[in-house]
Amino acid sequence: MTINRISRVVLTPVAFADPPLLNVVGVHQPWALRAILELHTDSGLVGLGETYADETHLARLEAVADVLPGHDPYDTHGLYRLVADVLGKETGGAGASFGGMLDVDSAVDTVYSPFEVACLDLVAREADRPVSDLLGGAVRDRVPFSGYLFYKWAGHPGSTDNGPDEWGEALNPDQIVAQAKRMVDGWGFGSLKLKGGVFPPEEECAAIEALRTAFPGLPLRLDPNGAWTPETSIRVAERLAGVVEYLEDPTPGIDAMARVAASTDVPLATNMCVIAFEHLAPAVAADAVQIVLSDHHLWGGLRRSALLAGITETFGMGLSMHSNSHLGVSLAAMVHLAAATPNLTYACDTHYPWKTCSGMAQDVVRPGVLDFTDGSVAVPTGPGLGVELDRDLLGELHERYLSCGVRRREDTVYMRSVVPDFTPNTARW
Amino acid sequence: MTINRISRVVLTPVAFADPPLLNVVGVHQPWALRAILELHTDSGLVGLGETYADETHLARLEAVADVLPGHDPYDTHGLYRLVADVLGKETGGAGASFGGMLDVDSAVDTVYSPFEVACLDLVAREADRPVSDLLGGAVRDRVPFSGYLFYKWAGHPGSTDNGPDEWGEALNPDQIVAQAKRMVDGWGFGSLKLKGGVFPPEEECAAIEALRTAFPGLPLRLDPNGAWTPETSIRVAERLAGVVEYLEDPTPGIDAMARVAASTDVPLATNMCVIAFEHLAPAVAADAVQIVLSDHHLWGGLRRSALLAGITETFGMGLSMHSNSHLGVSLAAMVHLAAATPNLTYACDTHYPWKTCSGMAQDVVRPGVLDFTDGSVAVPTGPGLGVELDRDLLGELHERYLSCGVRRREDTVYMRSVVPDFTPNTARW
Repeated sequence: MTINRISRVVLTPVAFADPPLLNVVGVHQPWALRAILELHTDSGLVGLGETYADETHLARLEAVADVLPGHDPYDTHGLYRLVADVLGKETGGAGASFGGMLDVDSAVDTVYSPFEVACLDLVAREADRPVSDLLGGAVRDRVPFSGYLFYKWAGHPGSTDNGPDEWGEALNPDQIVAQAKRMVDGWGFGSLKLKGGVFPPEEECAAIEALRTAFPGLPLRLDPNGAWTPETSIRVAERLAGVVEYLEDPTPGIDAMARVAASTDVPLATNMCVIAFEHLAPAVAADAVQIVLSDHHLWGGLRRSALLAGITETFGMGLSMHSNSHLGVSLAAMVHLAAATPNLTYACDTHYPWKTCSGMAQDVVRPGVLDFTDGSVAVPTGPGLGVELDRDLLGELHERYLSCGVRRREDTVYMRSVVPDFTPNTARW
Repeated sequence: MTINRISRVVLTPVAFADPPLLNVVGVHQPWALRAILELHTDSGLVGLGETYADETHLARLEAVADVLPGHDPYDTHGLYRLVADVLGKETGGAGASFGGMLDVDSAVDTVYSPFEVACLDLVAREADRPVSDLLGGAVRDRVPFSGYLFYKWAGHPGSTDNGPDEWGEALNPDQIVAQAKRMVDGWGFGSLKLKGGVFPPEEECAAIEALRTAFPGLPLRLDPNGAWTPETSIRVAERLAGVVEYLEDPTPGIDAMARVAASTDVPLATNMCVIAFEHLAPAVAADAVQIVLSDHHLWGGLRRSALLAGITETFGMGLSMHSNSHLGVSLAAMVHLAAATPNLTYACDTHYPWKTCSGMAQDVVRPGVLDFTDGSVAVPTGPGLGVELDRDLLGELHERYLSCGVRRREDTVYMRSVVPDFTPNTARW
C-alpha cells in the first residue's frame, strides 16, 4: 500500500468585492474574505478547500497547516483529533465569518472543515472519481439553488473601488421584485429567499406578498435572522401561511423557536439556533425546528454534514443548505455534498450571484465547471471536486486581500460608520 | 474515469456447527446458517459480504443479485434505492436470523447490508486501501471483544454429527465461571457478557456475582433479552449496581425500558428495542436507553452504522456492538467498522469462539488474518476487508448447508423438539 501523504500546505487569504447587502446586524463590508486551502502531495496531486478568512480563523488554520505535512488524506478521524489537539482549549469563539450574527462554542468543526474537504478532494483525485462518489454517489445530476434576495443600498458609501453595482438599490417591495426578476431572468432560479430582519416585519411581509404576486409558482422563503419576538413571529406566520415554504429563524434561540413552532403549521428552518451537533438534542427535545440548514463550512466538512443529514432524516426534520459569501471551491463542495444527500429536498442557498456585481476578477477557479442553468449547477463529473485553481486569479484576489484592509467580517461596525446610532435588530420587533 | 462495474454476483449459503446455546426463546439449532456474497468486477476484483441465510432473506438477496450486474460499487445510494425497489412493499418481516427474538418493519437495511459491505470492499481494493480508510480511518490498531458466555447443554440431543462439544455443560454459576475461565484463558478477553433470560433472575445474578468474584477486574454485562418485567429489572439493577457495566435489554420495549432507566443508574443497553433508525427518535424522547448496540448486518451496512454511531454521540448515548453467530467475512467487517468508530468505547460482542466447538472446517476465509490476541483482533491492513475466501472451505460449508436440512433459524421450534411445553421466557419473570 502506497500512502500518498500531504507534503505541503498552502493557505491563501483572498478578498472579493461584495455589494452592500443589508441584514439584521448591519451591512456587508465592501470586501468579503475567504481563505483558499491547497493540500499538496508528494505525487503532485492538489486538494482544495475554502473557508472563512477572519484573522482569528486564519491563525487557527495556519496552526493546523504547520503540523499537517506527513498526514494521510484518508485519515480524517486522525485529522479531526489533530485539529482538536492543535486548538487545545482555546476554541471559544469560532472566529468565523458570520458578521456577528452567531458563534459556536468550539471552533474545531469550522477549522477542520476545509482540511477535510481538501483531503476528500485528494482521495477522490487519487481514485479518479468525483467527491460525490466518496459520499455514496450523486442521487441527482444537478443541484438546484434558491435565488437569494437582499435589501441593499445602491452602492457602498465612501471611497471604495467597488462603488455602485449593477443590481441597484432594493429597499422596498417593488425594488425587491425587480431584483428577483433580474435574478430569475439571469440565473433561472426556481425558488426565492428574501433576507429580512432589516425593516419592520409588515414591510418584509409585503415584499414576500409582492414576490408571490410576481412569481405565482415559485417557492418563497423569508429569513429575518431572529429579528422578531415569538409573538411577532406567530403573527407573521399567520399572515404568510400558504405563502412561504418555510420561515427561517424568525426569532432567536431554541426556546423561542419552540414557542413559535407550537403555534403555527408554517415550517420553521434554522441556521442560527442549531448550528452545531450539540444543539441537535435540545432542539429535538423542544421540537423547535422542522428544517435544519446544513453548511459544511460550519458543521465540520462533508462527512459530518452527511451525518447531520442522517440525523435530520432519523428525527423527522427537513434539510436545506445555508450559504455565506463564497467562491467556486466552496460552491463545488456544496454541489457534491448536495448531490450525495438523498434527503436534501430543498433548493440550496447561495450568495454566488452577488459575486458578479463588479467588473473585476471575482473567483479563483477556472471558469466553465460551475455554471448556473435553470437555477441549478451540474454536479462536476471530473476527479475530486472537479475544479482547478487559476493561479493568476488567486494571485489577484490575494493582492486584493492584502490591499483592502478588511481583516474580519464586521457588519455592525461597518453599518455604524454610515449610521452611527445603528443597533442590531435582533428580537427588535 | 474508468468505472469498475459489478459483472457477476455469487451468493453461497453455508452452514457451520453451532453448540446448543440457550436463550430467552429457546436454543441454538445444531447448524447456523450464513450467506456469503461475492461481487465480481470486469477487472477481476472480488468484494465480499456476509449475512443471514434464512430462506426468506436468501430469496430477497437473490432478487437483488439478479439486477446488480452493471452497478458501480461507489454508488451505494443507488444500491439502496435499488434494494428498496426490488423489495417493493413486500418488506415486512426481516426474515433474518434472530431466532424469533426480534424483527424489523422493513428488510431494506438488512438486505442492503452485505451488498454495501461488498461494494466498499471493492472500492477499497481498487484504491489499495483497507475498508476502515473509507470510513475515515482506523482510530485504533486492535478491536477489543467481550467474551460471550452462554448457558448451554453439554451437546445437542438427537442424532446430529456435531454431538458433545469441547465446552461442556453450563447450567449454573460454577459452570459459567468454568466456561469464562476457558474463554479468558484461550482468547484473552478483557470483559465478559452473559447471555441470560434462561433461568430465573436470581440464578443469573448469582452467576454474574460468581464471575465478579472469579474475575475481579473484568467489566461484566448481563443480557436476558427482555426476560424480565420492569419491576424485576429494577430489582436486578439494584442488586447488580456497581457490578455490571451495563444491563442489556432487561425488559422488552421502549416504554418498559424507559421505566427501568428512570429508576436506576445502571446503564441500559439495547439490541432489541432500538434496532432500526425509526426506533431512535422514540427511544431518545423516552430516555429509554443509555447504550445502543450497533450491528452492521441489521443497520444497513458500514456507512449507516457510522451514522448510527454519530447519532448516539450527538444524543449523548453510548455505543457497543452486537453479534449473531457469524464467520470471518462478518468479523472482518465488524473489525473495520469498530476501528473507524471513534465513540465505540465498549468491547464488541462476538459469537466467534463458539465456532471452534467442532473438529470440522468452520469458516470460509483463509486463516491468519483475524486471530484473537488478548481478546482483540488486529485491524486488517491489506486492501479491502483484508480477508480472502478459501474456495475449498466455502464448498465444504455449502455442502453442509445442502445436507443439514436447516433452512431458517428457529430456536423455539428446536427447543420444543426437546422440551415440548417450552414457551419463550420474554417478560416471564
